Amino acid sequence: MSKILDQKLEQMGKEEKELWALRHTAEHVLHTAMQHLYPNLKKAMGPATTEGFYFDFDFDQKVTEEDFPKIEEEMQRLIDADLPMIQEYISPEKAREIFTNNPYKLEWIEDIDKRGEKVSIYKMGDGDIDLCSGPHAPSTGAIHAFKLLSVAGAYWHGDEKNKMLTRVYGTAFPSKEALDTYLALLEEAKKHDHRKLGEALNLFTICEEVGKGLILWLPKGNIIKEELETFAKKTEEAWGYQRVTTPNITKSNLYYTSGHLPYYKDDMYPPMKLDDGDEYFLKPMNCPHHHMIFHARQRSYKELPLRLCEYGTCYRYEASGELFGLMRVRGFAQNDAHIYCTVEQAVDEFLSVMKLHEYYYKLFGITNYHLELALRDPNNKKKYHGDEKMWELAEKLMREAAGKTNIKMVEKVGGAAFYGPKIDFIIHSAIGREFAISTNQIDLFMGERFHLEYTDKDGQKKTPVIIHRAPLGSHERFIGFLIEHYGGAFPTWLNPVQVKVLPIAERHHAYAQKITADMKEAGIRVELDDRNEKLQAKIRDAATMKINYMCIVGDKEMTDTSVSVRKRGGKDLGVQPMSAFITLVTNDIKTRTLD
Amino acid sequence: MSKILDQKLEQMGKEEKELWALRHTAEHVLHTAMQHLYPNLKKAMGPATTEGFYFDFDFDQKVTEEDFPKIEEEMQRLIDADLPMIQEYISPEKAREIFTNNPYKLEWIEDIDKRGEKVSIYKMGDGDIDLCSGPHAPSTGAIHAFKLLSVAGAYWHGDEKNKMLTRVYGTAFPSKEALDTYLALLEEAKKHDHRKLGEALNLFTICEEVGKGLILWLPKGNIIKEELETFAKKTEEAWGYQRVTTPNITKSNLYYTSGHLPYYKDDMYPPMKLDDGDEYFLKPMNCPHHHMIFHARQRSYKELPLRLCEYGTCYRYEASGELFGLMRVRGFAQNDAHIYCTVEQAVDEFLSVMKLHEYYYKLFGITNYHLELALRDPNNKKKYHGDEKMWELAEKLMREAAGKTNIKMVEKVGGAAFYGPKIDFIIHSAIGREFAISTNQIDLFMGERFHLEYTDKDGQKKTPVIIHRAPLGSHERFIGFLIEHYGGAFPTWLNPVQVKVLPIAERHHAYAQKITADMKEAGIRVELDDRNEKLQAKIRDAATMKINYMCIVGDKEMTDTSVSVRKRGGKDLGVQPMSAFITLVTNDIKTRTLD
Repeated sequence: MSKILDQKLEQMGKEEKELWALRHTAEHVLHTAMQHLYPNLKKAMGPATTEGFYFDFDFDQKVTEEDFPKIEEEMQRLIDADLPMIQEYISPEKAREIFTNNPYKLEWIEDIDKRGEKVSIYKMGDGDIDLCSGPHAPSTGAIHAFKLLSVAGAYWHGDEKNKMLTRVYGTAFPSKEALDTYLALLEEAKKHDHRKLGEALNLFTICEEVGKGLILWLPKGNIIKEELETFAKKTEEAWGYQRVTTPNITKSNLYYTSGHLPYYKDDMYPPMKLDDGDEYFLKPMNCPHHHMIFHARQRSYKELPLRLCEYGTCYRYEASGELFGLMRVRGFAQNDAHIYCTVEQAVDEFLSVMKLHEYYYKLFGITNYHLELALRDPNNKKKYHGDEKMWELAEKLMREAAGKTNIKMVEKVGGAAFYGPKIDFIIHSAIGREFAISTNQIDLFMGERFHLEYTDKDGQKKTPVIIHRAPLGSHERFIGFLIEHYGGAFPTWLNPVQVKVLPIAERHHAYAQKITADMKEAGIRVELDDRNEKLQAKIRDAATMKINYMCIVGDKEMTDTSVSVRKRGGKDLGVQPMSAFITLVTNDIKTRTLD
Repeated sequence: MSKILDQKLEQMGKEEKELWALRHTAEHVLHTAMQHLYPNLKKAMGPATTEGFYFDFDFDQKVTEEDFPKIEEEMQRLIDADLPMIQEYISPEKAREIFTNNPYKLEWIEDIDKRGEKVSIYKMGDGDIDLCSGPHAPSTGAIHAFKLLSVAGAYWHGDEKNKMLTRVYGTAFPSKEALDTYLALLEEAKKHDHRKLGEALNLFTICEEVGKGLILWLPKGNIIKEELETFAKKTEEAWGYQRVTTPNITKSNLYYTSGHLPYYKDDMYPPMKLDDGDEYFLKPMNCPHHHMIFHARQRSYKELPLRLCEYGTCYRYEASGELFGLMRVRGFAQNDAHIYCTVEQAVDEFLSVMKLHEYYYKLFGITNYHLELALRDPNNKKKYHGDEKMWELAEKLMREAAGKTNIKMVEKVGGAAFYGPKIDFIIHSAIGREFAISTNQIDLFMGERFHLEYTDKDGQKKTPVIIHRAPLGSHERFIGFLIEHYGGAFPTWLNPVQVKVLPIAERHHAYAQKITADMKEAGIRVELDDRNEKLQAKIRDAATMKINYMCIVGDKEMTDTSVSVRKRGGKDLGVQPMSAFITLVTNDIKTRTLD
């Protein structure tokens, strides 16, 4: 626990570290306040997080959001008292005395004792004592603004076999303004939540009968998926990729060859065991299957770079507590590719991959992103395969390629794959949320593991370098991101319904049907609302569904073969001849405008 | 064994039955001849088949195709002697005496004895006696033409746990002409074999490391797959279908609901068993997943007919001996759909499904096909679920729809699904092979099992009828069929490479590159052959790859911005201006011409 924390803090800037310490102190203020209000409560644990803090406790009574004002009041009292946060080191024996009635703390103490270390505690003034290695703000008065946010259940150590504890979430900032900005963003984020919007817009569903984390794409969501896929296929064809399709399963040996088994087993669905002793696994990634295609026949240097791509559907057994709408799922169709090339081609190919990312992101209006270079943990090199030279060369080539772009790159120690360093693209949505969307690697390891070879100019057999990439991530996560980024208001080319035709009265229905058919013929996704409802109700419903254009038709439009057009957001485009309107929409689609 | 045979014979016409009897007699001639030549051989069994006959025997020496002339000579001797085929019924005791040294025959006798029946034997003149229930030709002289074809290994009862026997295949006809026609067709079929062509044209591969029966689509094969899929998507959109995507797996309960488990278990991959007791299966069909989408929200009669379609990838654990290239596989992407409608809409919807088949097949140049109506076995109604009324209504509705088409329909007793009758489309390839490609059903059973409901006009909750259909079968089988149907010479729109540019000398390379780029720009799949080879070699290789057009370019073409065009098959289209040639090819693609 504390090792991971140390690493995290090491990577933080000064301001980030101070904010983290302030929130950590706020968490102590929270648990002290709660201990005052609920003396029988047992403190389990509570850290600061990138968004605030939380506190887990074991208590037989129910605590709900209705109790927050009371708790916040007690917290404010502790903050106003400006109590100093004082660290002390004590012996494990002494610590056991202090926490004798708390099995959670005793468990921590046991661990510390085993490591032969002293126990760090923090005192808040003369009151609360907690097992804690800090850091903290100097005193509680540093917390100029805080708020409790929600309450949820959580398992001790995140393990479903343990007792369910209660978790209270909150956040804290050094100023009231910063807190208010954050809360406004949070409010916006709730409105943008892809799960809520996904249901309201009929995009996807998850059902218990099929299984957790498995997405069923409804017709409307499926349109977005197919538009994305068609676009990626065309783009990648133009960028020199060749498309393949491989099975969703394989015999286990491929993963022993790659080294993913037994190492990665916990993240995979269990095997299908056949009577003849064969084990089949659902593929958690497409790489080994693509390697088998490279391996299927003799390869020459003339074929390189060979770029094999596939929207391959993979399955990973994520813990049920980690599942989150489309963002973290158990089955996902990845915008995957593997580029087999010579070591001399690697930098150019990797640079081209990064440029492809930029091309895509610009098109989706994603302007805020950066790179994260994940390296080995120098203190734990045993976790990684391959020799020193290979790691150094892979890092050098990737840095060289990244250096040729203008994209900001941060480094992250300890995040590498077991077979090499990687570069993640981190994108920021319109409401400021961050998503790791695509992992890229120059892989000097797997080629040898899979005995991949090509014959070079000089007749020598050589091992290709393999570049892994997935600029659009998976359909699931990328569409989840887009829903939140656009707040459900998709650009015309992606929107499941682009135009809604709203006849004012029944006598306009025939005309409305005709122009609906004409628009369909022109390749526009259009729906007719011929319900027996008032126009205002129809307009409201079309607005809720975030349709790009509404076409209102009455007597005048029927006579003129025109439509009265309202753009999403309410802008009145006035009466337009039918043909002009069709040109307008088809042009939106063709240019993939973000308007 | 004999019950299945009885059923088969029952369904045959007079001529078919006579041919079957003649081939059965030819099989007796074969085993008698072999017994003469190899006295230590033990006869196991040997039936007539739709293509000829075979004979399985247990013998320690090897018999190869080199022995066929000797065996055929001995067979001809028995035929020339025109020996009568005489049936007799004897007691099991007597039969045991006769076959005392043959464990295979003793096993059959044991079975017959258990059923309390007499044992039927056939004598060939005064010579061979075999355990056999017939029927046979009156005498061996009826065999006017026969030929032994191949030799292979086969397990007793088809069970891998039993001893491997030797199987000799042959065929027989009432005339020399009929035999010659058949052998010519067989020769042609060998050239058209999709496995051979699939490898030569680089379309797909199967590799032991991934698993038997699992197809890896190579870039060229994947182009055919995607062209088919894009075409089907467009067509089905125009025909009022809505596309969905569902996971490849589900928890087992869905199959208990459908009744496929435990009944269908042997045809499925084994389950993935999780620690929490959940079992997940790879889906062997898409139906239950689509039912869950129907079930995801309240449905109104206004939404019906609701047509949900998906190229869903399913997995079935076919026995390894049954696997055959693309034709019988363990993983396949099905051109699937389920139509949810009212009982009043069912006939029209089913008719529309059949018309969709006709539309597709015409486009692929499949002109020879018929329907097969598979009904319950009246002697074994316990095998089937659902009540009498439901079966009768389903059959009535399907007959009514089929009656409105002009497609010939034959009936097959005993081939129904466990939950209803079905209609298969049987298509015939250019070389005369038959394939069951698409199964269609009006299903009155599953709606209730899955508690599917819609609210009707009168406010009542009602169960929808479900129509199952898959006109293009699966990618795997349909492309396998097309490869054989076209002999690998795909129409332009489907061909992975449509045009090959062949520069005569190195000084023409720059021009060749330019026109290759122009054609790519125009959406043509074109390759440039700039190897340092003679023109004749380049032409030969392009012909082998069955490319639609070759463009030969030399000095004259370079000066004129033209190409010298050869169509596949050798027809010389002469020199054409570049723009005219591009129009020609893009028009081929657009019209999906079969030329």
